[in-house]
This record gives sequence, C-alpha cells and structure tokens, in this order.
Amino acid sequence: MERSMSMRPPTIRDVADRAGVSKSLVSLVLRGSGQVRPDKREAVLRAVRELGYRPNAAARSLSEQRTRTVGVLLNDLRNPWFVEMLDGLNSLLHDNGLHMLLADSRLNRRSGQDPAGPFLDLRVDGLVVVGTLPDPAALAAVAERLPVVVAGAREPLLPGVDVVANDDEHGARLVTEHLVGLGHRRIAHVAGYGRVGELRRRAFEATLREHGLGDGIVVEPSDMTEEGGYRSTVRLLSRAERPTAVFAVNDIAAVGALSAAEESGLRVPRDLSVVGYDNTSIARLRHVWLTTVDNASHEVGRRAARCLLDRFAGSGTPGGVRLAAPTLEIRGSTAPLGLPG
Amino acid sequence: MERSMSMRPPTIRDVADRAGVSKSLVSLVLRGSGQVRPDKREAVLRAVRELGYRPNAAARSLSEQRTRTVGVLLNDLRNPWFVEMLDGLNSLLHDNGLHMLLADSRLNRRSGQDPAGPFLDLRVDGLVVVGTLPDPAALAAVAERLPVVVAGAREPLLPGVDVVANDDEHGARLVTEHLVGLGHRRIAHVAGYGRVGELRRRAFEATLREHGLGDGIVVEPSDMTEEGGYRSTVRLLSRAERPTAVFAVNDIAAVGALSAAEESGLRVPRDLSVVGYDNTSIARLRHVWLTTVDNASHEVGRRAARCLLDRFAGSGTPGGVRLAAPTLEIRGSTAPLGLPG
Repeated sequence: MERSMSMRPPTIRDVADRAGVSKSLVSLVLRGSGQVRPDKREAVLRAVRELGYRPNAAARSLSEQRTRTVGVLLNDLRNPWFVEMLDGLNSLLHDNGLHMLLADSRLNRRSGQDPAGPFLDLRVDGLVVVGTLPDPAALAAVAERLPVVVAGAREPLLPGVDVVANDDEHGARLVTEHLVGLGHRRIAHVAGYGRVGELRRRAFEATLREHGLGDGIVVEPSDMTEEGGYRSTVRLLSRAERPTAVFAVNDIAAVGALSAAEESGLRVPRDLSVVGYDNTSIARLRHVWLTTVDNASHEVGRRAARCLLDRFAGSGTPGGVRLAAPTLEIRGSTAPLGLPG
Repeated sequence: MERSMSMRPPTIRDVADRAGVSKSLVSLVLRGSGQVRPDKREAVLRAVRELGYRPNAAARSLSEQRTRTVGVLLNDLRNPWFVEMLDGLNSLLHDNGLHMLLADSRLNRRSGQDPAGPFLDLRVDGLVVVGTLPDPAALAAVAERLPVVVAGAREPLLPGVDVVANDDEHGARLVTEHLVGLGHRRIAHVAGYGRVGELRRRAFEATLREHGLGDGIVVEPSDMTEEGGYRSTVRLLSRAERPTAVFAVNDIAAVGALSAAEESGLRVPRDLSVVGYDNTSIARLRHVWLTTVDNASHEVGRRAARCLLDRFAGSGTPGGVRLAAPTLEIRGSTAPLGLPG
C-alpha cells in the first residue's frame, strides 16, 4: 500500500528477478504448489511482499483457474469456539501463499442464501467448513466442484472430503472419568445434536456403565446454546434425585448451566460441578473459569489446511476422518463430592 | 445446489423470462443498482434463487468491473461485539443482491499480510472496516481504489470515507449519570485506546466535573482485553481510596473487572458496581449479567450498508461521521451505593 499509484505496478518478472528464480517458479509458488523448496518459496514470497506485487486475481482465475483464496464457512460466529482453529488454518495457508476469507453460514441462511454461494461465485480454490452445518449433506454438490475439508465437525462423510476434528469420544471419556474420580455418582449430561453431540453422549454413557453407574443415566437434550444449557440444567436441578455434576456438550451450554445453578442457590463447585467442552475464550475468563476439554483446535486447523494443500497438489486421499487428541483443562468449576464449602 | 450437474446452467435470459423483465434490468439488479423499483428487484432476486442462477463472477468482474461482493474487515474475531452489526450489514446488502465476505485483520497482521489484501485481489466492490484498526491511516490507499465505510469506530477521517458509529460521548455520559444517580462518588474508569477510547474517557470526565466530582478523577489505561481490564481493576482496588464503581471501556474489560473484584473478596454489585460498553453476548450471559451500553450495532450495520450502496450508486457525499444513539442496559452489576448486602 506504500507504493505510489503512478508507479508502474510490479510484474511477475520483477518478482522473479528479485527472488533470483525463474518466472515459472514464481508462478508455481503463487499457485500454492507443494513442490517448491521451502527456501525458494520463502524468497519468492518475500519478493512479493517487498515489491507489493499483486496478481490480478480476476484475470488469473480465468487463465490459471486459481484465485489463491480459500473460503472458510463458519457455522455460527456467535459461538467463539473456532478462533484458535482459524489461527492454525491461517498460519499454514499463509505459508503457502494462500489467502483466507470467511463467511457465517447462519447469516447466509437467515437471508435465504446458499451458504457457500459467495465463495463459489468468486471461484475460491477450496473450502473449509468449520463446525456442524444444519444441512451437511448439501455439501455434496459443492464437493464435486472444488476441494472441501470439514474441520471441527464429524459430518458429512463424503467421497473426497476430509474430516478433521478432535476425538469427541475420548474427550467425553476424560470428562466422565474426571467426575467419577472426584467421587460423583449422579452425573447428568446436557447433550447436543448432530454426530458430535451423539459421540460425546455415547462415550459419556459408556464410561458411566464401565464404572457400574449405568443405572439412572440422565441426559437432557439441548440446542447447544447458553439458553438451551440453562433450560436443560433447570430441569435437571428440579429432579428429586438432583445430580451433583453436570457435563455440558459445549462451553456455552455450560455457562448456561452455571447460571441455572446460581439461580437455584447452588454454589459451583461446592454444591455442583460443571464441565464444558471446547476450551473457548469464555471458559478461560477468570469470572467463569470453567473445567473443559481442550479440543486441540489449533492443531485441527493446521491439519485441515494440510489436507487442503495436499488436495491442491493432487495428492489427496479418498477422504476420511482424522482425529486430534483432546486434553482435559481442570479449572475452578469442578471439585470432589462433599468438599466442605 | 439441488440442480443436477448435467443440466444446462441457467442464463441471464432465463432469469429475465422468469421474472418477466428485460435482461438489462436483471443486469442492473445484479450490479446492485439503487435505481430499480423494489418489486422488480424482488422478482429478479426470487428468479435468481429459484433457478439457482450463478453469474460467473470472475468473467463478470473483467467485463463489468463488479463482483457483487463486499469485503468486511473485522479488527479482532476474539471480541464478539460486532455480531449484531454483521446482521444489520448483511440484511441490507443481501436485499440489494450483494454478498458479504469477512476477514480478521488480527490474523492477517500476525502473518504479515496487508489486512485488506485478499479483498483487493478478488476485486471486491467495496470494503467495510469494522472496529478500530491498529493503523487506520493505512486505509487511505485502499480508499483511493474502492468505496470504504468504517463502522463501529471513529477513525480514520478521510475524504470520501463514511464513518458510522454509535455516539460514544453520549454512551459514556449515560453510564456516568447512572452511577452518580445511584449515589456513587468515587467512580473510576478503565480506559481504552484510539479515538473511541478517548471520546468515552473525556465524556466520563466531563460528566463527573458537571456533578462537582472533578477532583480525584481516577482513570487507569487498558488494552481493552479481559486481561487488561483485570489488571487495571486490581490496581484500582488496591488504592487507599478504593472506588465504589468502575466504568470499563468495553464489556470484555468489564468482565476482567468482575474477576478482579471477586479475587479481592468484593461482591458485585453490593461492594462494587461495574459497567461495560457494547452489550455483547457476554454481557447478556446470565452468569455475567452486566450493566452496559447498547451501542445500536444493528442500526450502525444497516447505516454502513446504506452508505456503501449510496456510493455504488454514485450518490455518496464527501464522507463524514454519522452517529446512532446508544442506550443504557441496566442489569445486575450496578446497585445503589451502600445497599445492604
């Protein structure tokens, strides 16, 4: 942007000269090829930056069929669980000369648009879908036209589509073992929807059964929002056999559970332990300080970017699920059963 | 997306036939012209949706120099204050046949990219900058190339650039009057940066002076994050003359203030009143329930979209500041001074 408008714009020739490489190598780097030596790629990208070289994306997309842009479709901007994942995605995409643009599928749906529409119109090179879409099967048509990677969700499973996520079953198991280990016996689950919701719920139930706590498993469904978590927990706390611990399907529902506890006059964690999932910025607020599962978002983002780059380079596999290992973040919302207040 | 890949793709002719209008009127609507009757525009957009018509954006951008896409540059995705604004922006842009794509300037900066670069490469029709950028002056070069509107910030003031925001001085005045009205006399401010930070701080100070409370005005600077709000409030609460109320420059810093109060053994609002600014989803969490200023984000978004549409239609003004009126949302974090606990 520091270049004067009257100067001759730099050409690909200028970039090649400055980087000390051939024009075709510059072109390879700009197309995101994985076949260029890292030092050469770095030299080219440095020359691009220093000269302020800006390829004409519209003209290029007609000639080379590449825009060097990846579309990222988020399921709902209001739940900030995806922020770390974008960091991971962006770091690797940028290292490979690719831009990232975002869209919020909730906003597009509300106005009746096809969620991926703007990206298709602009001929992005690939699409990363972050989180569970209300209609995951609709991605099939998009996946026929360009590489699609699903990150942080477990569906749809489609030919040629990579799915990268954390291991939801392992994460739910870590939570349940933690609560059982603290002495809790009446542990309830505020469940979610979709494949992610199902995997977390099933692992929760299986772990309880392994500990001989299979009788009286209590699961309340929710829509995975704060309001939903609140309402489900209000129902749970009004039961005759009140649970002493609640495992919510995600952090935002867990924050709703905290409010329900507060309104019922219960102190967390003294009277009720609460656990979330995702390790969002909200869980890390000192005022919330929620025990939760870190879903390895940054790593999931990097792996999703790697899958996309492999597909661009033509070395993608038939598609499948790749899982990163989640870890438990123990904070202030869980405590041993019967701890003196 | 429900169309089979083997069918002939619909043409602009098909759209015109279905909508019962001429091809050139379809073209006008698709270019976002404000000169088409609303009923005709609606008929065209309905036909576009029903037929699944998808103009070739890359080819069109060469011929018509329009991509029907607006870039939205967010200052930091981690602070969710902008979500309502995007709703407002999107509703009006969509009604005019325009798509919206997002980028996070913090992510772009971290990887050394020019924040607006991806948008310029894809030849977006216009740019909306949401929030204060670290280097607002850098927008000058972009504004020479395409229409730019700043939303939810007060800078940069550049020729031809519209600035749409809430009235920060009025908002800070509402907060200060509220706290003075509750009987507070030692009111401290956790301040921010940039023009927005300055306007809120100045109005706070001016209001206190009008009430004869100009002596001993206490202001602690912050970086407008949760961590910053926490650290500033820790300093405020360790003063010999401890404040009884804290007005934080935004909600996320106010949440940091809540944590600092908790750690100091102070109950909010009994021992300390806390107010934020922005009315974010975090302030609305029952567990937080923060008194705050509603910054009319949805309205700001709609007005920003209107400014951009006016510029596309060639009827833009020389640029200037348009302010929406904020309102005070009184919740659970403020109470009269000396209220029995």
